[in-house]
Amino acid sequence: MSLDGYVAGPSPSLDEPLGRGGQGLHEWLRSLAGWRAQHGLEGGTTGPEDELREEASSAVRAVVMGRRMFSGGSGPWEGDPNAGGWWGDEPPFRLPVFVVTHHPREPVSFANGTTFTFVTGGVGAALADAAAVAGEGVVGLAGGAEVIQQALSEGAVDRLRIHLVPVLLGQGTRLLDGVPPRGLQLDGVVASDAVTHLTYRLT
Amino acid sequence: MSLDGYVAGPSPSLDEPLGRGGQGLHEWLRSLAGWRAQHGLEGGTTGPEDELREEASSAVRAVVMGRRMFSGGSGPWEGDPNAGGWWGDEPPFRLPVFVVTHHPREPVSFANGTTFTFVTGGVGAALADAAAVAGEGVVGLAGGAEVIQQALSEGAVDRLRIHLVPVLLGQGTRLLDGVPPRGLQLDGVVASDAVTHLTYRLT
Repeated sequence: MSLDGYVAGPSPSLDEPLGRGGQGLHEWLRSLAGWRAQHGLEGGTTGPEDELREEASSAVRAVVMGRRMFSGGSGPWEGDPNAGGWWGDEPPFRLPVFVVTHHPREPVSFANGTTFTFVTGGVGAALADAAAVAGEGVVGLAGGAEVIQQALSEGAVDRLRIHLVPVLLGQGTRLLDGVPPRGLQLDGVVASDAVTHLTYRLT
Repeated sequence: MSLDGYVAGPSPSLDEPLGRGGQGLHEWLRSLAGWRAQHGLEGGTTGPEDELREEASSAVRAVVMGRRMFSGGSGPWEGDPNAGGWWGDEPPFRLPVFVVTHHPREPVSFANGTTFTFVTGGVGAALADAAAVAGEGVVGLAGGAEVIQQALSEGAVDRLRIHLVPVLLGQGTRLLDGVPPRGLQLDGVVASDAVTHLTYRLT
């Protein structure tokens, strides 16, 4: 999230899915050794920040995401140029992913262990399906903003980790918009030059 | 600032100037020993957080604020029920304060060293007046949000310190709204249960 609250910049498109300036919000992640190794890249930084990522990544057993995060599109699948998902042949999840959509379709599986299952019953239903396969593990809520806002509004989020990037985007999609008032408990801060990781409990 | 970016809640009024839930954003401050002593109150917490407040407070030699922060009102002074300011007989500044307003008037002075000077030339003019009296000292930009946004937009801010409170307000006045895109440098983080202090350089 940018300091002014955006998780995507203005004018998102298929070429620039995170909008103008939005891609820069993820640069810290692409510089971490653990993330790079996971994506077949060498180098990168190690340290507390990379450990935090590794800890979260290894606890998650299922993921929920919105339709736009799956393919960049919306509406019926027939008209979606990335109906198969835009994550390539090796989606970086390697676990069950539940995609919230209004448009039913059969699941899609990849050799690396990633499966995309499409849930038409809303965010709550997707979270329930994910929890069922996650067992004792954690369900990760990947985004986008709308899905996270809905989960927060339904009281379905136990922990919120915000990666606060020292940049102002000025416009775009805000992460926390229209979420009902409530308190949270700070559960930890890890800061580097590129990003401040703020973890909150909502219980 | 709340985690969702608000510095005041919805429906601000003379009775509740920070809007619904907004007063809670300042509770961390009122619990600090140094702030309490400054306001003739006993007790409070000490530690890195209080030191940070003390350091900032002792560096500041002049303050700029918006009209509404001075009196809670707007428009001509004749119609303002708090035209003398709503800070009481001992405004907690004890230094020159420059108030940005469209409505000229004579300065107001208090025995404790606080003077309010009214500047009609905009935020830039108020900052210039404050800098002239601050000399080598720091000019503090107290608020509200509009004045801070204008100063940021004009490139007049060197440092931004955000006191991030673990609460969602859902509605209200956002601190960082309509500010042009730019990068910042993180200059330090101090965290307690009640608030995370994030300092950024904008140079």
